[in-house]
Amino acid sequence: MAKRVYFFGGGKAEGKGSQRNLLGGKGAGLAEMAGLGLPVPAGADPLLVSCRSGARKSMPGMMETVLNIGLTSQTIPGLIAKTKNERFVLDSYRRLIQMYSDVVMEKAAGVEPAEGKGVRQQLEAELKKVKEAKGYKSDADLTGADLRGLIEIYKAKVKEVLGKDFPDDAQEQLRGGITAVFQSWNGRRAVSYRRIEKIPDEWGTAVNVQAMVFGNMGERSATGVAFTRNPATGENVFYGEWLVNAQGEDVVAGIRTPNPLNETTRTASAGQLPSLEQAMPETYKELVAVRNRLEKYFRDMQDLEFTIEDGKLWMLQTRSGKRNGPAAVCMAVDMVGERLITRAEAVLRVTPAQLDELLHPILDPKAEQQAKTIAKGLPAGPGGATGQVVFTANDAVAQAQKGVKVILVREETNPEDVEGMRAATGILTARGGMTSHAALVARGWGKCCIVGASEIKVDVHAKTFTAGGVTIKEGEWVSLNGTKGVVYPGKLPMVGNEDNPSFTQFMKICDSVRALGVRANAESPADAAKARAFGAEGIGLFRTEHMFYGKGAEQPLFLLRKMICSGTAQERRKALGELFPFIKSDIKGTLEAMAGLPVTVRLLDPPLHEFVPNREDERQKLAQALGISLEGLAKRAEDLHESNPMMGHRGVRLGVTYPEISETWVRAIFEATAELIKEGKKALPEIMIPVTCDKKELDHQAEMVQLIHREVAAKFGMKKIPYLYGTMIEIPRAALKAGEMAQTAEFFSFGTNDLTQMTFGFSRDDIGSFVPDYLKAGLLPADPFQTLDQTAVGELIAMGIERGRKTRPKLKVGICGEHGGDPESVKFCHRVGMNYVSCSPYRVPIARLAAAQAVVEEKAKKGKK
Amino acid sequence: MAKRVYFFGGGKAEGKGSQRNLLGGKGAGLAEMAGLGLPVPAGADPLLVSCRSGARKSMPGMMETVLNIGLTSQTIPGLIAKTKNERFVLDSYRRLIQMYSDVVMEKAAGVEPAEGKGVRQQLEAELKKVKEAKGYKSDADLTGADLRGLIEIYKAKVKEVLGKDFPDDAQEQLRGGITAVFQSWNGRRAVSYRRIEKIPDEWGTAVNVQAMVFGNMGERSATGVAFTRNPATGENVFYGEWLVNAQGEDVVAGIRTPNPLNETTRTASAGQLPSLEQAMPETYKELVAVRNRLEKYFRDMQDLEFTIEDGKLWMLQTRSGKRNGPAAVCMAVDMVGERLITRAEAVLRVTPAQLDELLHPILDPKAEQQAKTIAKGLPAGPGGATGQVVFTANDAVAQAQKGVKVILVREETNPEDVEGMRAATGILTARGGMTSHAALVARGWGKCCIVGASEIKVDVHAKTFTAGGVTIKEGEWVSLNGTKGVVYPGKLPMVGNEDNPSFTQFMKICDSVRALGVRANAESPADAAKARAFGAEGIGLFRTEHMFYGKGAEQPLFLLRKMICSGTAQERRKALGELFPFIKSDIKGTLEAMAGLPVTVRLLDPPLHEFVPNREDERQKLAQALGISLEGLAKRAEDLHESNPMMGHRGVRLGVTYPEISETWVRAIFEATAELIKEGKKALPEIMIPVTCDKKELDHQAEMVQLIHREVAAKFGMKKIPYLYGTMIEIPRAALKAGEMAQTAEFFSFGTNDLTQMTFGFSRDDIGSFVPDYLKAGLLPADPFQTLDQTAVGELIAMGIERGRKTRPKLKVGICGEHGGDPESVKFCHRVGMNYVSCSPYRVPIARLAAAQAVVEEKAKKGKK
Repeated sequence: MAKRVYFFGGGKAEGKGSQRNLLGGKGAGLAEMAGLGLPVPAGADPLLVSCRSGARKSMPGMMETVLNIGLTSQTIPGLIAKTKNERFVLDSYRRLIQMYSDVVMEKAAGVEPAEGKGVRQQLEAELKKVKEAKGYKSDADLTGADLRGLIEIYKAKVKEVLGKDFPDDAQEQLRGGITAVFQSWNGRRAVSYRRIEKIPDEWGTAVNVQAMVFGNMGERSATGVAFTRNPATGENVFYGEWLVNAQGEDVVAGIRTPNPLNETTRTASAGQLPSLEQAMPETYKELVAVRNRLEKYFRDMQDLEFTIEDGKLWMLQTRSGKRNGPAAVCMAVDMVGERLITRAEAVLRVTPAQLDELLHPILDPKAEQQAKTIAKGLPAGPGGATGQVVFTANDAVAQAQKGVKVILVREETNPEDVEGMRAATGILTARGGMTSHAALVARGWGKCCIVGASEIKVDVHAKTFTAGGVTIKEGEWVSLNGTKGVVYPGKLPMVGNEDNPSFTQFMKICDSVRALGVRANAESPADAAKARAFGAEGIGLFRTEHMFYGKGAEQPLFLLRKMICSGTAQERRKALGELFPFIKSDIKGTLEAMAGLPVTVRLLDPPLHEFVPNREDERQKLAQALGISLEGLAKRAEDLHESNPMMGHRGVRLGVTYPEISETWVRAIFEATAELIKEGKKALPEIMIPVTCDKKELDHQAEMVQLIHREVAAKFGMKKIPYLYGTMIEIPRAALKAGEMAQTAEFFSFGTNDLTQMTFGFSRDDIGSFVPDYLKAGLLPADPFQTLDQTAVGELIAMGIERGRKTRPKLKVGICGEHGGDPESVKFCHRVGMNYVSCSPYRVPIARLAAAQAVVEEKAKKGKK
Repeated sequence: MAKRVYFFGGGKAEGKGSQRNLLGGKGAGLAEMAGLGLPVPAGADPLLVSCRSGARKSMPGMMETVLNIGLTSQTIPGLIAKTKNERFVLDSYRRLIQMYSDVVMEKAAGVEPAEGKGVRQQLEAELKKVKEAKGYKSDADLTGADLRGLIEIYKAKVKEVLGKDFPDDAQEQLRGGITAVFQSWNGRRAVSYRRIEKIPDEWGTAVNVQAMVFGNMGERSATGVAFTRNPATGENVFYGEWLVNAQGEDVVAGIRTPNPLNETTRTASAGQLPSLEQAMPETYKELVAVRNRLEKYFRDMQDLEFTIEDGKLWMLQTRSGKRNGPAAVCMAVDMVGERLITRAEAVLRVTPAQLDELLHPILDPKAEQQAKTIAKGLPAGPGGATGQVVFTANDAVAQAQKGVKVILVREETNPEDVEGMRAATGILTARGGMTSHAALVARGWGKCCIVGASEIKVDVHAKTFTAGGVTIKEGEWVSLNGTKGVVYPGKLPMVGNEDNPSFTQFMKICDSVRALGVRANAESPADAAKARAFGAEGIGLFRTEHMFYGKGAEQPLFLLRKMICSGTAQERRKALGELFPFIKSDIKGTLEAMAGLPVTVRLLDPPLHEFVPNREDERQKLAQALGISLEGLAKRAEDLHESNPMMGHRGVRLGVTYPEISETWVRAIFEATAELIKEGKKALPEIMIPVTCDKKELDHQAEMVQLIHREVAAKFGMKKIPYLYGTMIEIPRAALKAGEMAQTAEFFSFGTNDLTQMTFGFSRDDIGSFVPDYLKAGLLPADPFQTLDQTAVGELIAMGIERGRKTRPKLKVGICGEHGGDPESVKFCHRVGMNYVSCSPYRVPIARLAAAQAVVEEKAKKGKK
């Protein structure tokens, strides 16, 4: 049998810091500190011990601890004699009864008391009674006599509530404590926490049995927690809190206002309370030395627990400290500057979620803790938002113009809502997935958005919605946490994320490490400029469709509709001719904004019927322009209707059936490029054909592209207009046929939204009806539109790249689906050898970080082999 | 340079019959006959020659021939002296002028005369004039003097029309003839024929230059064509036609009624005309000997051309004869009986299309030739139909009940039209593909059906449709050729395909050769019985959905709707309880009809909203039953609406979100099986989970299946109810994850309709808007819903089988998409190692044939290696 019990203490330890998986985080830290010769209470042997949990990964407050084990009618007199401090011993004993009866005798024994009838509450009530009777303010006011009386009351109460005597045998107490800590791994809180944090159930916890040291032994005793740097800001200052004459749980429980650790970090709330620096300068100095030693040793900010027993410092815990986004970035950058860590290590010190925190203002987390959740949905657009509810896009625009902050609440959004979405501060929909229209648009704009909140029932006519038993009327306030997908009633305060000076430096570190290129998806010249500012090295997907939505889009949209509803190719060509200047100007603006960097322009992609107007007045105007009746228009619109438009007449299929459409776009690309070159600018367009599934489609369109190229080049008196010709790989067949496709395509861009749709047979607009059940039943590890399915979709991607590069070794390969901004997916893209990922502008920093992490993780893996 | 000129004649030949690709079919046959010592006019050298075309594959009448080459002012007197027959020589010369001026001087020279102004018509007009002036009935009445005058008129006319003299040089005539025959490969007729028959352009034709023999040398001369067996029935009788004193073109041109070859095959139309058997008994005997020798030698029915020159028999051609379906089957069976061919060869002698002819009555081909085509569509349901047009399903039912034969014409069909579709004799739709609803249903019923006839414009209100410039009103007759997809106005006569006695025997031959199992897709016990009669070895796909359509479906459909529109799981369970007896009875009936054979029952597959009623009265009834308002019902229906239902909430996804639905079906399967076993019948159900893409889905449903199994087994006091548990593989991800899926699944059934949809990103209901353009532009070799895409979809299938069998070597694998009845796809299924194919009952014989052919072709390929 493997060794299961490890000793530590007195400058020696059987375990090591690297044995975290065996000893747990706490145990490993204690062993390491003991090995370093730091003052650590020894494990296992001494008279009084604590039993403390400690899994591989910190789960703060989720598991149990039992202190003061070993106090019995036999040992109490001895301890009093030894310490000459009866009050301290009795205080420790009443703490033992209180904790043990709760954790061991009730919880671990599986007793399920009625609400408020738990042994802990009942004992606390007794304690309160005694204090009230005596007029005491604090536990510290209790005298030895008070405690002696209280202990008898406690014992009687335990017997009454649990039907058992409190055990008076040290061995029995220890067995009970160990068992209880092990069992707390399966406690309700711990299990929920593991679900959220994705910690595997099979890890289990270690139990640390350690000699007690006492912070409650009098005025020369104390206990505290400290962080080697400020975990909220990352600032390189020693930060912490402590209490005199107390045990650790008192600090955590918040019964007394804790003292500041030192003068540097004293805050207003600490008032005049003495700092440890002032109260115990020698011990403080010793603690500072420990701090310095540990940080240098662990090369990361540490979260410390210490106790001062009668003037002597004991270290109870050291572990890597939790931190928020700004702090993580600041510390990573600082530690590189201090030569404490390498750039590669720095890159691993910030999670993508932490970086994301820096990019969006958020709801005040404290206010959130106290607010009532009325609905949950998908976290489609991160950050927070608070505003007054409106139910139509028009109302959103009207209210926003008056300066009102509005939250647009819709059953689901459609392209006609775009104006309202832009005007809103936040968006909330009852339907849709992470890549639904609302989600895509919101993320593109860095806007807070929750979609698929199926609990909310929207009544557009009454202008109300109901959720969690609450009915919210138009004009009432709601608040959204778009990072978690939570909806609150009322107006919650916001916390800004000001410009962080470390951010730019950190991004530079990432860029120096990563190999993968990072581009952005853009829908307008303005998007492109924003993307460039976020560090995008090109546009991986320029969707010209955007020019048909939103403000200023009336004219091009009208012309597009005219084109779509044309009765003949001639009519269609005429409308396209009128549309041409708009397309060209849009493309030219984007190429110009990205001058010197490549811009992948996708030809028209969506099914045409998406653009047909629904509003009566717009239909009338359109029919008039086409010289047909409303019925005639309705017939043409009906002809465009499809059962499954996602797999219908779109993308390259439009280019084959209506060649004049692709021609117009291609001509616009070449003319815009030629004009920019004539103006002395470096335009690098890449023409991308969407929705292909066969080389022949690419050949068909390539012939047209070459023809238009010759025409435009001749018109501008140029020999050649630079461009690349390539395709989206977004249909499973395209991935399988990639070897042939690469004969014609000079680049591939994996469209993983569609590829996921077709590979799974999941319509992203319709998954709301079953994917939540799938996630709940554990049938899917994650929404595949959020996190790339690396097993099957990933296999198709890897296969596509391999086959493509076999034909054309220098084939340029990227990804332009929403996954391009998902960290795990970015890492996957690095591993399969893509040249770049492309994501929404706001995700560019995240992608840069993930790409850098991929390099470091890959090297670590190789190193291990 | 390769040898390009091959000699044959006088019992010797430089070429061989196997050199068909080099010498062409005619040349190869001539070389082979010459080699056999049969009387074949020699190639190349003699004075008068013919130039005749001959490609690898016969293209009857599509290319040119020039006879009598070499007659000039210098050679004519010599030939007259030699033959002592001036009239014959002059007749030959006028034939030369007539043919040569047309084929060589006009057509091959690229002269394009106005309509009716071609040289051939003008010469024929002169011939007619002379005959009328003399009061002659036949060309044979022309005297030598008549011909001498006519020749001068011809020569003048040629000069007048073509501006050139008729060439009087034998070498020039020969060069011109050879060139003209080569050029006729690119003539308009030949090109069109190649398109239809899919003959590659690059093959080209051979030119056979051969000594002339003359059937027009007097009463002891003759010419004829013969088939070694009757090509219309397959009967083993020598069948043919001949004319005395004529050249071959006279037989083909139909100027004179031809004589019968013998007494056995004399028909009414031949009247009292003497047979060759009577007129020239010796020569006939010689010809019979040639017939016997050639058929034994080529081991197939031959199509012969012969000429008798002054009593001597000459063979001008032998080739494998064209035949219709019944003849092909009859001959294959007979020849196996005669030990002329092996079973393996017999299997290759019948094409799937020929076999199909036996299974459906057809339009009379002769009437079709003369009818006007008004529209073309996709040949969705083979066979022919003629009937009076109706425009609604209700009208179809009403008229059919009165005994009227109706053709149901719709823009497209939906499930509510099913009743009308069943009542109709034929179905015609403007939209939809080969696997559209109408097509699937029609094929399942063996009903004539044309879909996607986009030229037809349906006006349902006016009850008319327009196509090819013709407007057809309700009640007017139209005729459909569902094998070719052609629509004719009017009532065309039908030709029945009576029960063919050879059919059963031929199928037995196929079954003895094939390795692949053949099952049928069925929708009802009646279907199953029919499938069994057609030779199905099980049901590969039993779709219980059928019980909700058509006659007698009112009650189950109403209960299903109640279930779908339930507001709570409890309501849903109640409705399912009421539905249960219907489901069980349907499944039991099918299991019973197939007793002893496996029946794969698919759990509920389609998106629920498909069943929600559109009709006001039905909605009212449903709302009432549910105790909700019409608006409430509308809301529930709206909630079920999906953007892309094909990739939405269907199949196993329903089973996960509404477990009670799958449970009901599974319970019905087990109870039906248990009851049949108790009744002493052998029921072999296979439970099939549709639309899966992950092993976890299968595990989730398997748990439920095992639970219900235990419950039902206990209820019936049985230890175990036999069943297999498996899944459809119809989502690309399922094929990729097949290795894992096979851990749980005991069988796979490839659903290639959906697999094709997702692999291509083609919605089968929407491809009508672009696939026709794709086919026209050559971007697709075929509609992938008709013929399986063996490159990409095929790769996924092969991958799925390989991965599945790696996990579970005995995994049973089949296909249940529409491709299961497509011959090329069946062969593919054999090659990738499937256990069976499953197709609609009417396609079962085709699949049995294709499966047998696959074995033979595979062996041939292995033999070659």
